[in-house]
Amino acid sequence: MKTTSTTTGAQSATGPLLVISAHAGDFVWRAGGAIALTAAAGERAKVVCLSYGERGESARAWREGKNLEEIKAERRAEAEQAAQALGAEIEFLDAGDYPLLETQELTDRLVHVYREFEPAVVLTHTLADPYNGDHPAAARMAIQARILAQAIGYDAPGEPLGAPPVFHFEPHQPEQCDFKPDTLLDITPVFDRKRKAMECLPAQQHMWDYYTDLAKRRGVQLKRNAGPNLGLPHTCMAEAFVRLYPQTTGVLA
Amino acid sequence: MKTTSTTTGAQSATGPLLVISAHAGDFVWRAGGAIALTAAAGERAKVVCLSYGERGESARAWREGKNLEEIKAERRAEAEQAAQALGAEIEFLDAGDYPLLETQELTDRLVHVYREFEPAVVLTHTLADPYNGDHPAAARMAIQARILAQAIGYDAPGEPLGAPPVFHFEPHQPEQCDFKPDTLLDITPVFDRKRKAMECLPAQQHMWDYYTDLAKRRGVQLKRNAGPNLGLPHTCMAEAFVRLYPQTTGVLA
Amino acid sequence: MKTTSTTTGAQSATGPLLVISAHAGDFVWRAGGAIALTAAAGERAKVVCLSYGERGESARAWREGKNLEEIKAERRAEAEQAAQALGAEIEFLDAGDYPLLETQELTDRLVHVYREFEPAVVLTHTLADPYNGDHPAAARMAIQARILAQAIGYDAPGEPLGAPPVFHFEPHQPEQCDFKPDTLLDITPVFDRKRKAMECLPAQQHMWDYYTDLAKRRGVQLKRNAGPNLGLPHTCMAEAFVRLYPQTTGVLA
Amino acid sequence: MKTTSTTTGAQSATGPLLVISAHAGDFVWRAGGAIALTAAAGERAKVVCLSYGERGESARAWREGKNLEEIKAERRAEAEQAAQALGAEIEFLDAGDYPLLETQELTDRLVHVYREFEPAVVLTHTLADPYNGDHPAAARMAIQARILAQAIGYDAPGEPLGAPPVFHFEPHQPEQCDFKPDTLLDITPVFDRKRKAMECLPAQQHMWDYYTDLAKRRGVQLKRNAGPNLGLPHTCMAEAFVRLYPQTTGVLA
Amino acid sequence: MKTTSTTTGAQSATGPLLVISAHAGDFVWRAGGAIALTAAAGERAKVVCLSYGERGESARAWREGKNLEEIKAERRAEAEQAAQALGAEIEFLDAGDYPLLETQELTDRLVHVYREFEPAVVLTHTLADPYNGDHPAAARMAIQARILAQAIGYDAPGEPLGAPPVFHFEPHQPEQCDFKPDTLLDITPVFDRKRKAMECLPAQQHMWDYYTDLAKRRGVQLKRNAGPNLGLPHTCMAEAFVRLYPQTTGVLA
Amino acid sequence: MKTTSTTTGAQSATGPLLVISAHAGDFVWRAGGAIALTAAAGERAKVVCLSYGERGESARAWREGKNLEEIKAERRAEAEQAAQALGAEIEFLDAGDYPLLETQELTDRLVHVYREFEPAVVLTHTLADPYNGDHPAAARMAIQARILAQAIGYDAPGEPLGAPPVFHFEPHQPEQCDFKPDTLLDITPVFDRKRKAMECLPAQQHMWDYYTDLAKRRGVQLKRNAGPNLGLPHTCMAEAFVRLYPQTTGVLA
Repeated sequence: MKTTSTTTGAQSATGPLLVISAHAGDFVWRAGGAIALTAAAGERAKVVCLSYGERGESARAWREGKNLEEIKAERRAEAEQAAQALGAEIEFLDAGDYPLLETQELTDRLVHVYREFEPAVVLTHTLADPYNGDHPAAARMAIQARILAQAIGYDAPGEPLGAPPVFHFEPHQPEQCDFKPDTLLDITPVFDRKRKAMECLPAQQHMWDYYTDLAKRRGVQLKRNAGPNLGLPHTCMAEAFVRLYPQTTGVLA
Repeated sequence: MKTTSTTTGAQSATGPLLVISAHAGDFVWRAGGAIALTAAAGERAKVVCLSYGERGESARAWREGKNLEEIKAERRAEAEQAAQALGAEIEFLDAGDYPLLETQELTDRLVHVYREFEPAVVLTHTLADPYNGDHPAAARMAIQARILAQAIGYDAPGEPLGAPPVFHFEPHQPEQCDFKPDTLLDITPVFDRKRKAMECLPAQQHMWDYYTDLAKRRGVQLKRNAGPNLGLPHTCMAEAFVRLYPQTTGVLA
Repeated sequence: MKTTSTTTGAQSATGPLLVISAHAGDFVWRAGGAIALTAAAGERAKVVCLSYGERGESARAWREGKNLEEIKAERRAEAEQAAQALGAEIEFLDAGDYPLLETQELTDRLVHVYREFEPAVVLTHTLADPYNGDHPAAARMAIQARILAQAIGYDAPGEPLGAPPVFHFEPHQPEQCDFKPDTLLDITPVFDRKRKAMECLPAQQHMWDYYTDLAKRRGVQLKRNAGPNLGLPHTCMAEAFVRLYPQTTGVLA
Repeated sequence: MKTTSTTTGAQSATGPLLVISAHAGDFVWRAGGAIALTAAAGERAKVVCLSYGERGESARAWREGKNLEEIKAERRAEAEQAAQALGAEIEFLDAGDYPLLETQELTDRLVHVYREFEPAVVLTHTLADPYNGDHPAAARMAIQARILAQAIGYDAPGEPLGAPPVFHFEPHQPEQCDFKPDTLLDITPVFDRKRKAMECLPAQQHMWDYYTDLAKRRGVQLKRNAGPNLGLPHTCMAEAFVRLYPQTTGVLA
Repeated sequence: MKTTSTTTGAQSATGPLLVISAHAGDFVWRAGGAIALTAAAGERAKVVCLSYGERGESARAWREGKNLEEIKAERRAEAEQAAQALGAEIEFLDAGDYPLLETQELTDRLVHVYREFEPAVVLTHTLADPYNGDHPAAARMAIQARILAQAIGYDAPGEPLGAPPVFHFEPHQPEQCDFKPDTLLDITPVFDRKRKAMECLPAQQHMWDYYTDLAKRRGVQLKRNAGPNLGLPHTCMAEAFVRLYPQTTGVLA
Repeated sequence: MKTTSTTTGAQSATGPLLVISAHAGDFVWRAGGAIALTAAAGERAKVVCLSYGERGESARAWREGKNLEEIKAERRAEAEQAAQALGAEIEFLDAGDYPLLETQELTDRLVHVYREFEPAVVLTHTLADPYNGDHPAAARMAIQARILAQAIGYDAPGEPLGAPPVFHFEPHQPEQCDFKPDTLLDITPVFDRKRKAMECLPAQQHMWDYYTDLAKRRGVQLKRNAGPNLGLPHTCMAEAFVRLYPQTTGVLA
């Protein structure tokens, strides 16, 4: 029987976690648990928001008549609070959204982040999303920057990057984004922190329950795939991910 | 940087390993490293051969004029020696090959094996193989039996099975079998045992170097995916696998 | 703007609905809304259960020490009540489960059902399900029987079948079954009936909320794909399906 | 039996139809029937041609020695006549072809079109076409503009767009473009108008019969998928499409 | 520029051609050109019909009130005439259709055919066909028998088979069967023979033009993929195929 | 039995071969055999290197402290020697690497190459490569330029291009790049030249054996797919390719 050690949060994280997201709130809904687990294990977790989601993900603020700068400031403040609730650092590149344009300059900034932060694990969006062009754009730049950061000949400070694994986090409509989860992460021990982080985003209150339900659903699947006799708690909470590269391991489990 | 602990063989295995293969030699070429790692960690590893490969994988013996019973005995003896070299138990179901027929009776025998052995990890063939119909037939029965063994209502002794992960091991022409490796296992610490096990199969001597070369190639890929700074040995040896079900984990790595 | 008429339940169904499922409870969780919509529109809906799910989907009853016949009777009674709550007819073929064996005899019985019932729409399982071999077996027989029923030369009473569309209903772990929804059905007007039908299955009480949550999630997606200005109710409930054959239509919508 | 009402043109269209195509003639061959059906139902149909196809789809004119401006004028005149024959409005963005460059400026113009026209249905090219880079470029901009037009924060006049369904129309070599039709549209009632529109393009006379044959072939498939007893005319004419987003509906058919 | 020699029929065939089809008429519509080319090059072509298509593909005869034996005799006679028109041998295994059952006995008969006929090229159905279960069943047996015939240990007369390439011929609704042509065969020199063979099947007269149109369409695609300057005739006729195994070659073309 | 003529190098090539690669060394490892076969048959082979691979594929030189210009000169000299060893012409576009930026200017330069060189066959990278963004960028430009060069209206000297087949050559981690070989090229007669060309790249000495082993592995697969009785040499060497467009042919083989 598979032992509980591989599916509980007792293990320490393997090192610094870098999350690259298109908009200010994405990291909370889609990767809040992974971030909190990392922080709880004493490792650094850093979120890089390419934009504030000021145009495309702030409908309520626009309807309330706020202007662009107000909206950006509001989104920034909320995201900072959410990051704090999770135990993460956060950086805003303010590159604009809807559309988030894929440029060499922005990619280069990400290379600098990789070289400086030296992540052990990277999280970003899926490469397909027919509902949101910014998400794949962010993912393409995150992956391209990781490749560039590995090259000793690329002109940026710091050592060439190793080969940190990259995981795609879950999009809003997973099947439509060809998101077939291959990794279910047990976030039960830190779910309360994720919920607190979600509650830092009051404009999207309907999402709090939506993503709590999703965590339950993914938790049911985690239990189904980990075996009924695992000694997992009655209600597991989980987040789903898809690997970009093969897992390297010393043991099959 | 990803730590070395996830890609060296120092970790203990997670429990008993069950390998279900169509023919007597398959487990050596395709999963010998995984088996030896398990045995080296002090866990049971068990190989179930559905047939001896007496018709489809014994061309030399047929050309030498041996008869069916002689060939089966020879294949059995060689496989037993190879299993011993790896530290594994082995059982032969003698269900016949070319074709290996998919039957409810044979599937039921596998259910009994699951219930008795209680594997923590299962290895079997790919579900597609346009060069060999026995391999997918074995894989279908291995998966179906695992499902049946989980049902308390299935009439077989023992407790309902948990949900051990299932990995497909590497076929001879991986791309033609839609085999896209998602797990690269570091078998460096036990590669000498795999080589010794291969050498127990003298009729397929050309395969010794072929699968040594493959282990090198997969080792190069393991290093490429694990990062150049990992402190892995200069020459890594690896085996490649594809998961059937999502990985369940308490930590992303 | 897409008009509301295509996404509300006000339309009449197009004719008799046939649901072919492996086990007694499947039709409730996966297609209860579609069935209730059909019945509400005054059309016949018929469920054919190939088995009672007596071995594979009755864990609680087995743990309570019931025997096979008791379990079958219990499952049958519950399924009859659920069908009644939805307004559907139900027929049990009692072909056994875990495994449900794919046979020509059972397929032939389904041909007779098609010829007699003359469905306008057919619902069944997905063709892939790595967690349950009975589901794909049921789907393969449902599709094969539909093909056979179309042939005038097939020896069964009744007229050759037309070409009713076939929809796969949603499996428990959709992504793992390659289930990418292409049809979202608005079941808001009849969701209370689906809930009542679910409550006819007391052994699986944890599923009531699970599938209520799923209906909400699919409802959110329905609204997202139908446009925010549609005049749909605040909370939509939906079921997801995948077509086997192309849609034929006189109007794009 | 599926009723005839879903596969004849008697139904009214669901609202304004927007067709976004790379070159001046594309809309005639690939979507002429859908356009004529919309117009016949009394709804607006609008074609936006990103270029005239002056370089890549005007081989005969170049061989005749015409210059760029002459060719553009000729293509424009023909397309206007074809649009008129179908009952559609037409607008030319003159963005150049071979290559049609994907730019934020051009995408922004499309956002304005969406906001002004408020389509209920959108048609465009496939996202893959190894024979023509302009087609996927047009499709990517059409989809991206639809997404942007939905955002209240996007700076363009008009109300945020709803969520009109998007259909890909049929490319010249469908299988090579991963075009697997999921929607067959009955264009029998308006095929004569499509033929007239095709005849407005004299430089491509060999295409008239080619696309008439295609309509017959797709018509045969429509009948095959709609059932032999449908009461459809002996010879049906059809166009094939692929949905980008799931269908939302109140009834399965 | 690619030379004409690779796309005209002037080349001699590479050896005996074996066509394995489910029903009596399949080989004419789907592979008549390939067969005639082989015969014209002086090589043997042999068609093996697993059934007469007596139940599933003889609707007109059933409507005319003929009985099973009459229909089988009629189908056989027509197929023999068509084979003769193409220059092929033909053998009927009379295994029954609708359904064509996949059995070890029937597969074994095909192994004997392979060993006796020693084909250089094999043609059969696609592995997917949601409209016809007999077609994939025939394809699975054709492929399985080819694998078995290669094994020296398989108990059948003759030498072990080499590794003849296998091509899937075109199904009626190619996209729905995941048929993405990777080989376009120029059948212009022998199209008249294919037409004559089609005319041997009077019950399916509507198919004569249907498959003539298809040959034209595939011919247009052949020209499009072979280059406009090839010196091919104005109207090319072609058949489309999909390879099961990689092409082995001494020259890229 | 398939004749040896299709799998030995005795055949003459079909015309000029154009290889478009991202970096200076790519053509040697991935297509050296195809190039040497073409040259040996008396046809022109031309390599176009979009960059020298100065930043991304010259790690050793950077670690030795060389500067950018030195590295470019070194890479150029080595590539020229390797091309000479294979019998190929070589041109360097010096467009920069890591990242190789996809621009209309660079694509236009490739159009001019196509129009001037008039290739009969084109080789380039795969369209997917999660380890290297330059490779897909090169492939996209190579394909786009081929399309543009076919248009008479495209403003570049020379005649419109025909339709030369395009092959993707093998990436370093084939399965991760969705590289499923459909063409295995026998390079046995020229493998010594490929080895000599590899030895012109001393900085990557570990690759010499790596790609020799790969050629052996692909050679084993070639024999497996061409049949054991082919009379091929004991040890075959091969290169693997994937076609972008369907093969056009006058004979199935």
